[in-house]
Amino acid sequence: MTVVKSTLPDDARRIAGDALQDTLVDMLGLSLIGKQAHWNIVGPRFRSIHLQLDEVVSTARGFADTVAERAAALGVAPDGRPETVAARFQLPGPKEGWVRDTDVVQVMVEALEEAIRRLRERIEATEKPDPVTQDLLIAVTGELEKQRWMFDAENWPRD
Amino acid sequence: MTVVKSTLPDDARRIAGDALQDTLVDMLGLSLIGKQAHWNIVGPRFRSIHLQLDEVVSTARGFADTVAERAAALGVAPDGRPETVAARFQLPGPKEGWVRDTDVVQVMVEALEEAIRRLRERIEATEKPDPVTQDLLIAVTGELEKQRWMFDAENWPRD
Amino acid sequence: MTVVKSTLPDDARRIAGDALQDTLVDMLGLSLIGKQAHWNIVGPRFRSIHLQLDEVVSTARGFADTVAERAAALGVAPDGRPETVAARFQLPGPKEGWVRDTDVVQVMVEALEEAIRRLRERIEATEKPDPVTQDLLIAVTGELEKQRWMFDAENWPRD
Amino acid sequence: MTVVKSTLPDDARRIAGDALQDTLVDMLGLSLIGKQAHWNIVGPRFRSIHLQLDEVVSTARGFADTVAERAAALGVAPDGRPETVAARFQLPGPKEGWVRDTDVVQVMVEALEEAIRRLRERIEATEKPDPVTQDLLIAVTGELEKQRWMFDAENWPRD
Amino acid sequence: MTVVKSTLPDDARRIAGDALQDTLVDMLGLSLIGKQAHWNIVGPRFRSIHLQLDEVVSTARGFADTVAERAAALGVAPDGRPETVAARFQLPGPKEGWVRDTDVVQVMVEALEEAIRRLRERIEATEKPDPVTQDLLIAVTGELEKQRWMFDAENWPRD
Amino acid sequence: MTVVKSTLPDDARRIAGDALQDTLVDMLGLSLIGKQAHWNIVGPRFRSIHLQLDEVVSTARGFADTVAERAAALGVAPDGRPETVAARFQLPGPKEGWVRDTDVVQVMVEALEEAIRRLRERIEATEKPDPVTQDLLIAVTGELEKQRWMFDAENWPRD
Amino acid sequence: MTVVKSTLPDDARRIAGDALQDTLVDMLGLSLIGKQAHWNIVGPRFRSIHLQLDEVVSTARGFADTVAERAAALGVAPDGRPETVAARFQLPGPKEGWVRDTDVVQVMVEALEEAIRRLRERIEATEKPDPVTQDLLIAVTGELEKQRWMFDAENWPRD
Amino acid sequence: MTVVKSTLPDDARRIAGDALQDTLVDMLGLSLIGKQAHWNIVGPRFRSIHLQLDEVVSTARGFADTVAERAAALGVAPDGRPETVAARFQLPGPKEGWVRDTDVVQVMVEALEEAIRRLRERIEATEKPDPVTQDLLIAVTGELEKQRWMFDAENWPRD
Amino acid sequence: MTVVKSTLPDDARRIAGDALQDTLVDMLGLSLIGKQAHWNIVGPRFRSIHLQLDEVVSTARGFADTVAERAAALGVAPDGRPETVAARFQLPGPKEGWVRDTDVVQVMVEALEEAIRRLRERIEATEKPDPVTQDLLIAVTGELEKQRWMFDAENWPRD
Amino acid sequence: MTVVKSTLPDDARRIAGDALQDTLVDMLGLSLIGKQAHWNIVGPRFRSIHLQLDEVVSTARGFADTVAERAAALGVAPDGRPETVAARFQLPGPKEGWVRDTDVVQVMVEALEEAIRRLRERIEATEKPDPVTQDLLIAVTGELEKQRWMFDAENWPRD
Amino acid sequence: MTVVKSTLPDDARRIAGDALQDTLVDMLGLSLIGKQAHWNIVGPRFRSIHLQLDEVVSTARGFADTVAERAAALGVAPDGRPETVAARFQLPGPKEGWVRDTDVVQVMVEALEEAIRRLRERIEATEKPDPVTQDLLIAVTGELEKQRWMFDAENWPRD
Amino acid sequence: MTVVKSTLPDDARRIAGDALQDTLVDMLGLSLIGKQAHWNIVGPRFRSIHLQLDEVVSTARGFADTVAERAAALGVAPDGRPETVAARFQLPGPKEGWVRDTDVVQVMVEALEEAIRRLRERIEATEKPDPVTQDLLIAVTGELEKQRWMFDAENWPRD
Repeated sequence: MTVVKSTLPDDARRIAGDALQDTLVDMLGLSLIGKQAHWNIVGPRFRSIHLQLDEVVSTARGFADTVAERAAALGVAPDGRPETVAARFQLPGPKEGWVRDTDVVQVMVEALEEAIRRLRERIEATEKPDPVTQDLLIAVTGELEKQRWMFDAENWPRD
Repeated sequence: MTVVKSTLPDDARRIAGDALQDTLVDMLGLSLIGKQAHWNIVGPRFRSIHLQLDEVVSTARGFADTVAERAAALGVAPDGRPETVAARFQLPGPKEGWVRDTDVVQVMVEALEEAIRRLRERIEATEKPDPVTQDLLIAVTGELEKQRWMFDAENWPRD
Repeated sequence: MTVVKSTLPDDARRIAGDALQDTLVDMLGLSLIGKQAHWNIVGPRFRSIHLQLDEVVSTARGFADTVAERAAALGVAPDGRPETVAARFQLPGPKEGWVRDTDVVQVMVEALEEAIRRLRERIEATEKPDPVTQDLLIAVTGELEKQRWMFDAENWPRD
Repeated sequence: MTVVKSTLPDDARRIAGDALQDTLVDMLGLSLIGKQAHWNIVGPRFRSIHLQLDEVVSTARGFADTVAERAAALGVAPDGRPETVAARFQLPGPKEGWVRDTDVVQVMVEALEEAIRRLRERIEATEKPDPVTQDLLIAVTGELEKQRWMFDAENWPRD
Repeated sequence: MTVVKSTLPDDARRIAGDALQDTLVDMLGLSLIGKQAHWNIVGPRFRSIHLQLDEVVSTARGFADTVAERAAALGVAPDGRPETVAARFQLPGPKEGWVRDTDVVQVMVEALEEAIRRLRERIEATEKPDPVTQDLLIAVTGELEKQRWMFDAENWPRD
Repeated sequence: MTVVKSTLPDDARRIAGDALQDTLVDMLGLSLIGKQAHWNIVGPRFRSIHLQLDEVVSTARGFADTVAERAAALGVAPDGRPETVAARFQLPGPKEGWVRDTDVVQVMVEALEEAIRRLRERIEATEKPDPVTQDLLIAVTGELEKQRWMFDAENWPRD
Repeated sequence: MTVVKSTLPDDARRIAGDALQDTLVDMLGLSLIGKQAHWNIVGPRFRSIHLQLDEVVSTARGFADTVAERAAALGVAPDGRPETVAARFQLPGPKEGWVRDTDVVQVMVEALEEAIRRLRERIEATEKPDPVTQDLLIAVTGELEKQRWMFDAENWPRD
Repeated sequence: MTVVKSTLPDDARRIAGDALQDTLVDMLGLSLIGKQAHWNIVGPRFRSIHLQLDEVVSTARGFADTVAERAAALGVAPDGRPETVAARFQLPGPKEGWVRDTDVVQVMVEALEEAIRRLRERIEATEKPDPVTQDLLIAVTGELEKQRWMFDAENWPRD
Repeated sequence: MTVVKSTLPDDARRIAGDALQDTLVDMLGLSLIGKQAHWNIVGPRFRSIHLQLDEVVSTARGFADTVAERAAALGVAPDGRPETVAARFQLPGPKEGWVRDTDVVQVMVEALEEAIRRLRERIEATEKPDPVTQDLLIAVTGELEKQRWMFDAENWPRD
Repeated sequence: MTVVKSTLPDDARRIAGDALQDTLVDMLGLSLIGKQAHWNIVGPRFRSIHLQLDEVVSTARGFADTVAERAAALGVAPDGRPETVAARFQLPGPKEGWVRDTDVVQVMVEALEEAIRRLRERIEATEKPDPVTQDLLIAVTGELEKQRWMFDAENWPRD
Repeated sequence: MTVVKSTLPDDARRIAGDALQDTLVDMLGLSLIGKQAHWNIVGPRFRSIHLQLDEVVSTARGFADTVAERAAALGVAPDGRPETVAARFQLPGPKEGWVRDTDVVQVMVEALEEAIRRLRERIEATEKPDPVTQDLLIAVTGELEKQRWMFDAENWPRD
Repeated sequence: MTVVKSTLPDDARRIAGDALQDTLVDMLGLSLIGKQAHWNIVGPRFRSIHLQLDEVVSTARGFADTVAERAAALGVAPDGRPETVAARFQLPGPKEGWVRDTDVVQVMVEALEEAIRRLRERIEATEKPDPVTQDLLIAVTGELEKQRWMFDAENWPRD
């Protein structure tokens, strides 16, 4: 017996559900590595990037919630448990311990680039099955691309 | 060469640092399982507990930040990366998929009770090495005990 | 002589205008039955659902305004008069008099499901004629699907 | 078996209940025709009256809620369903389609005048049965008379 | 020698003063039993009613202040000391210790009903002596009747 | 030809209109003498009474606006021009120049007492002709009586 | 014996005091005639000018307070009593009763022009005696000139 | 069968529970006598102390809530019913009727001193059994000592 | 060497970049001509349209920022320098000096219509290359169409 | 025939008008180059200066509005059209494309220095003709000098 | 080599810089003695003056910041170190320990009078060298004169 | 004769009073040197550290107030006069004139470290005499340690 019913046919629900579940893991992981960098950053640009990282975390947490509730709205139970996030999260992140500010900027550019690359695939995949989900993924992508630019702009000239 | 210096002697810093790192993992894990339950809860009390869980998440996120920054302030690099949280988090949490409202209440009571039990040991351990850290752990415990009571009160009569 | 000019060719304007006018009736009707249930609900879950219904009403009123002003912006005079709403509104709603809380949840699930089904047809119909209108209907659908899930989640286990 | 009990004797409850139910229909109808005019008004005074009409709508919606909850508080189930509003609403309103600004002002003066005339009868009828209900109707009347004046003042010199 | 002079003749002042003093005791007592229930409630509806009770307390405290200052404004010294409240307060309230949620709802319906019954007598008594005091008591009654309805509506079906 | 039409018959309009016009003069005059005292007070209680007087002024200005707009709503053109206020204002007020704090308190008690005495006559006069106007005058009286008490309470022991 | 001492020599205090006292009368009178027009305006531009006049009143009241407190700060007791305002106020204002919107605009242009002309004389007179007072009068003039322009701009084409 | 479970062993819970219950009575009583004085104070310092007393009341109400919820969190049902407060409250308070401002200050100093004396005993008693409760009592004491000082400072020179 | 890297392939980046750069010029130009009209408008509708124009300016400024940052996020350096705006801006605007209110309305209708026509071409052009950019242009179009309607509605009956 | 009349004689109006028109061009140009730099800056100080530039833009926009409305208030039609700004703007600004952070700081110091130099000439020129305009230009200068200092302070040590 | 360049010639910068540095010391000293009195005041007017002093402190701190940043903007490094304030501060202040309320008022009148006397000299000195600095000193003087009046007004009748 | 009585025995009061007085001097001094650095800092990190220093100042001012009022609450008159601060303040601070950003960071780390070292001694000294004072000093220490870490983190790699 179905617990929460879906307003989509089965195939569409599966494709949209997968895209949302994968995005949920990316957003939760991003919020964790963003905080990790927020706490462990050292170097002359500490304060500026410390604050910037909190905006990444706030964005990622907000999208995690929206994306997970969208999955639930489609009758797909989202999975954001610690073990799931750890097992499936594949974006690069800061290493253990204190991290130099230039390294934080570099790793955030890379993590956001990879997140964006994966989102663009999901935008394409969900266009037909569910334009509502696609529209949400477009919004996530636009915001992450803006944040990627801001880290990239301060990552210059590159070493 | 030390990156961030400590205002505590080495022994005290180690004890306080361990207490804070363990609390950080508990808080980050709690915020993830709180959201998991927030998204997956079903049953007639859905809305009331859905909202209540967001207060747990908000509390846990706030304390995670305070606790990690306290560690950093003592010269101890906090570790809140996804793999660390998954590996060290030991509180009970909701299973995968939709969860009945009564089960959510039960698991939150248990998770909070275990978190509190561990915190009380750390309050005792940090009293001498660092009363500032102890005072923070007392505040965390007081808030979690309040939230535990509210879940326990609505967990009655027990099945 | 045209009163308010359109930025769309005639065919596109007609299709978008019809989709918006029909959505306007659904939203105004939804706001009225949402308030009806808000006032007449009885049962142990009174307070929780009483508050939840006000969010439906607030959402429906906001979308009614946006949708009607979008029609006007396309040079189509929107019609939201009492007799029009009564004549054309086709979503299920609460019966006269006091209504049991479980029945309110059931009827809201059904009303929202039917509204969503009709909106998805309009999303398809407006894609080519006017992507601006389509984008608005996608936003309406996403929000109603979220609210439908929340009623559905608390409608479980079903009798 | 009574669902919601009344704090008034039967006769008083019937008189107060009728006055409140009739006022509810007037307020819901007024909010619908106010919005209709808000969307369809054309002419050089568009912006000024467009904004003024939203104050009428906001007032009417607020009073509809207060009046319906007062009925419920007296044990009388209020009826604000679309078909009820359409069947019983008797105030004049704007015709279909775009409406000239001068005509909007005229129709609002007339609609408010008729609403006030009916309210003054209900103030008299409810004085003895329920001074609490009477006090609410006095407040509604005072506010509508203020809004009527403002439309009347800009309706001058009359054609 | 009079301390604070009155703007009312002696008889009117005495009647209005008595009505206000009695209402003061009811409001202070209501705020105390509302908090008592807020703290001691247990059962699955804990959170919803816990929050609802705080609205009763907030209402009762606000009216206690308004009513006492109205007495003072009439030259009548209000008495809200603990011993006075305890001696004169006659509304039903929760028993000592934890209270089941259904019992809280029942006792609040009864307490509010009794408070309303007494207020309606005072509305009648103060009409001639002081319409200003009467108007205040009408406002108190209207608000308490609204709160009574909301508890009564969730008290159904009755056991 | 009537400029702004009235919702009252002629006799009622005249009585209500007179009561409102007289109250308008009292409120405007009160706001002027309140500010006069606010600026010219001297003595050890300067700051406390300086602030208290601004509350009188704010109250009087607010009521002047409400009362004048109520007159306009009844089709009676209100008159608050400087020469009208000066010619008809009859409440006692502070003399020219600096005024001792104790004298300010005394004159405010007297001005408010006289304003209240006149308002109570108008409450009686307007009861039948227009309960909406009466309700407004009751509200004005209640607020002025509260402010009178606060000046009277600090006017003790009297010299 | 001096009540409030001055930080200016006698001559300077007298010149600054006179400029401030005259400005006080202008501002209080302006606030009264602004409200008079706000209440009595009729015509198609009622709402727009009704709101604009409240900004004049708010400005005039604010400056009255600042100007009077500046006089007091210089040891000059300001005089804003009703009889003083009526006797000394010389700006043009609206006649008794309802006033056509075009006439309101015309009279406000004239009143503000006259107020500005008088202020410019005082700016010159106070430059040497007290640059602090001059600076305040410059601020008053700038704001009134802005408001004069806005009435003048809507007073075109002139009849 | 236990209703709300405790996170403390029995002995510790009893000691902490007693300290919290006694503090609850002190805070509720303090809020009642603070309001009593707020309403009944007369004398030239009326306004200043009237406002100051509301801060005492607000503080006492806030602490009553925190203290009672702390008791509940420890599995101890708090008792704040009118009869309990009246029976167990032992701080000095104002006598019946109007009270001179100097007497109010004196009685507040005494009431707060006694409350503080009792709190300091409880701080000592709870140190070992429950540092979380102790920390809360320390916060209450600090705030009351601040308020005591402010009354004491204005109680000088003493008669 | 690339300064800010792009997440799009070269062709897509060029098309999206051109669409964004052209929209940036339109938005900056629109904000300048909107302010020009805001300052130079004369005529009886001065105030209403003066305020309405500030909403156009605020909208245009907000979109200019969003559009330019979107270009930067795609690795395209946006150009909004004065000489660029002047050279490339092609929407109609107000002539030099004072402008009659009816002419302002007419020119705003025309400027917005032209801006919308150009945006609809860009919506089509960007659909495949970058749905994120397309989504932003859809939002800009929807808002400008709403503002065009409001000017058009008050531009009736046309001369 | 004059459209908006002036409160200044012709000579004074011309001098003040020229000073205001030139300042308007400087402020509009400054707001455009500030945004240009805000979007195109790259380098490690990106975020800090990106935010700082928005304060320049906000300041420049605010002063542009105040200065243009001051001109209008003096009967001088301000000119802020794109072609006027481009033709008359003479402050240095960033070149096309991405700009290194150190270059942004340098160009902002230079642009602000030139703007200040020109403003100081206008302060002198307007002293006699119109002290109200002079006072406004003094305020503009003070704020720009503060912003110049902050860029200059971070422009050190200079290369 | 100059660190922060000045927009003033050397002579003007020296005069303006001295005036600002001296004002900085007065403002910092005033904020310290204001707080000293705020903490140590005793007597029946404790609360009223305790609050009033915080307004002096807040004013003084705000002006200290504005004045110091103005010096920096002129290329003059401000000096507000503890030893500088102590060495150069010459206004009268409260003695050590508790201070009677009447003595606080007296000392504040004297301190403010002396500060104003010195400011008026600086207003004169800076008029030619830097009207921007002069304008700031005029604003400081106006505010201090207002605060001086309020202390002086409550310092009456003098002993 | 005692002015403000203490709730502590003499010995405890003396120890707590000394700890608070010394902390007061540290906090006032810290607020002065924080502002000194805020005004005089130069270098590429100017803006970021300029803002960070204002948080130090705000923290130090807040704690100065809390600490001084705590002393007063214990019957100990706090001493924060300029000469006292200058004589007893022993933390390192910035030298006269412009200071390089790297030097500011270094001096703030040192000043905060010394302040923390002294506070930890006082935490130990006050534990027995007054746990309320100790709790306040623990809070001060925790906050200063957090701020020290943030300066230390941006002070790396050290020269």
